[in-house]
Amino acid sequence: MLLTALELVGIAAFAASGALAAVRARLDVFGVTVLALTTSLGGGTIRDVLLGVHPPVALVRWPYLAVAAVTGLVVFRFHPTVAKLRRSVLLLDAFGLGLFVTAGTTTALALGAPPYAACLVGMTTGIGGGALRDVLLREIPLVLRREIYAVAALAGAFVVVVGDQLDLPAVPVSLAGSAVIVGLRLLALWRHWNAPVAPRLDG
Amino acid sequence: MLLTALELVGIAAFAASGALAAVRARLDVFGVTVLALTTSLGGGTIRDVLLGVHPPVALVRWPYLAVAAVTGLVVFRFHPTVAKLRRSVLLLDAFGLGLFVTAGTTTALALGAPPYAACLVGMTTGIGGGALRDVLLREIPLVLRREIYAVAALAGAFVVVVGDQLDLPAVPVSLAGSAVIVGLRLLALWRHWNAPVAPRLDG
Amino acid sequence: MLLTALELVGIAAFAASGALAAVRARLDVFGVTVLALTTSLGGGTIRDVLLGVHPPVALVRWPYLAVAAVTGLVVFRFHPTVAKLRRSVLLLDAFGLGLFVTAGTTTALALGAPPYAACLVGMTTGIGGGALRDVLLREIPLVLRREIYAVAALAGAFVVVVGDQLDLPAVPVSLAGSAVIVGLRLLALWRHWNAPVAPRLDG
Repeated sequence: MLLTALELVGIAAFAASGALAAVRARLDVFGVTVLALTTSLGGGTIRDVLLGVHPPVALVRWPYLAVAAVTGLVVFRFHPTVAKLRRSVLLLDAFGLGLFVTAGTTTALALGAPPYAACLVGMTTGIGGGALRDVLLREIPLVLRREIYAVAALAGAFVVVVGDQLDLPAVPVSLAGSAVIVGLRLLALWRHWNAPVAPRLDG
Repeated sequence: MLLTALELVGIAAFAASGALAAVRARLDVFGVTVLALTTSLGGGTIRDVLLGVHPPVALVRWPYLAVAAVTGLVVFRFHPTVAKLRRSVLLLDAFGLGLFVTAGTTTALALGAPPYAACLVGMTTGIGGGALRDVLLREIPLVLRREIYAVAALAGAFVVVVGDQLDLPAVPVSLAGSAVIVGLRLLALWRHWNAPVAPRLDG
Repeated sequence: MLLTALELVGIAAFAASGALAAVRARLDVFGVTVLALTTSLGGGTIRDVLLGVHPPVALVRWPYLAVAAVTGLVVFRFHPTVAKLRRSVLLLDAFGLGLFVTAGTTTALALGAPPYAACLVGMTTGIGGGALRDVLLREIPLVLRREIYAVAALAGAFVVVVGDQLDLPAVPVSLAGSAVIVGLRLLALWRHWNAPVAPRLDG
């Protein structure tokens, strides 16, 4: 119940980031809604396609669809206000990332994926939607360039996998994994951490 | 029989739009053929991947492949003529969209997807190929920007789902859904309808 | 055993091409690793998604993941040296293409796909990873433009399918298919062969 409420908050945050990017790219109201849906439900859909869950959960649970679509429409209508709330959206986005990654990792483990595969699937669940958003809007995915985004996702997935190997109870392990992700993201945003870039190629 | 003939017309129209875009992007003869295949069969393939139909129907029915590939080669050879037929291609494209969306929605319902999921899957069947085409050619997908394209697809899918809920016979319902899509597209092309765009972001 | 060793060489070559492209696009160390993984394992993952193999083999075999990730990190650290070895990377890439295409075609036939579908799946296995790399880095896929790349893949897949129809033993047929691909690629690189491009559109 609490978990579902948190999930819906995460979906709304991801949908808002997709819709804002679509408004900036001058898409019409329908394109903005599609980007909101893709960004918030794309990661989970990729996870389900990889793991063979048909049809993908994101398409079957109508509250997910409703929250994503309504968020898209709200952003379309009030986007200058939402753009001013950028800091809050980033905060919610960190929570969404935490929930999506740990839920994705847990699902993969439950369906019998080996630990390293579960890590990758969990990370993909968290960053796949944002990557789709950027590919559709013709950007190099931000999650491959932004401060410690995918690294945070991988760290949280790792916590879940280690907890599973040690047979610890699932819920506290998921919360710990989420906390690691949220903590790393907030630290990265606060300190402007970035992963190193290779020196420019001269040859 | 009639339905298959109509489907092949739709595939040829979608393949022509992909091949024309590829010729404009200066792809070689092979790239043009790949784009023709991707544009015409990509939407159905995404549908089958989402619904767990393996291998995707589009790869298994050779007439689909043959029509798409031959259309690509014909466009490569005679593209100035085909470009002049742009209006006819758009007309055929509207028919293709109508058939693809209603067929995709019907398939999703037959495989047990809930109504709203069937709507989304049907819409994806219709617009997925065009979206793949544009992503591969590094464009922001036209279907997210063009006059009432995805909205028409969604409206047609909705008709099919409502007909299914009311237990109406499948074939007339599919025809009605297709008619709605074709009608909306032709009206949008004729009147240059576009969905609204958000005012420019100043902040 | 030998086949696995060859596969790992192919994965390393594909991973190096992805990582080099990512370094050029100024991704950080994590993005470079993700591109290495995507380029080398993306084709096989697309194949498994199309054929319904869950979870995809590439995510389940840890040596694949390890070789791809380590190659990415090595390229990130020593990329000026690797860039100088461009010719060797292209050579290894040709071997990788040969192995991936024939393995993909064989897998598709084993899972009951009809011959033409197996050809397409095999080709996709070989060129899918490179296409993903270019889409993520916002390029029109090189495999659709480069000298006889996808054509070579298709020719090799065709050899495997013909061999299968004639009930020839699988291993020599796969080797013959790979040899065709490697030979065509080396000839194309040596003679700067390219497939024809349509004359520019004036209308």
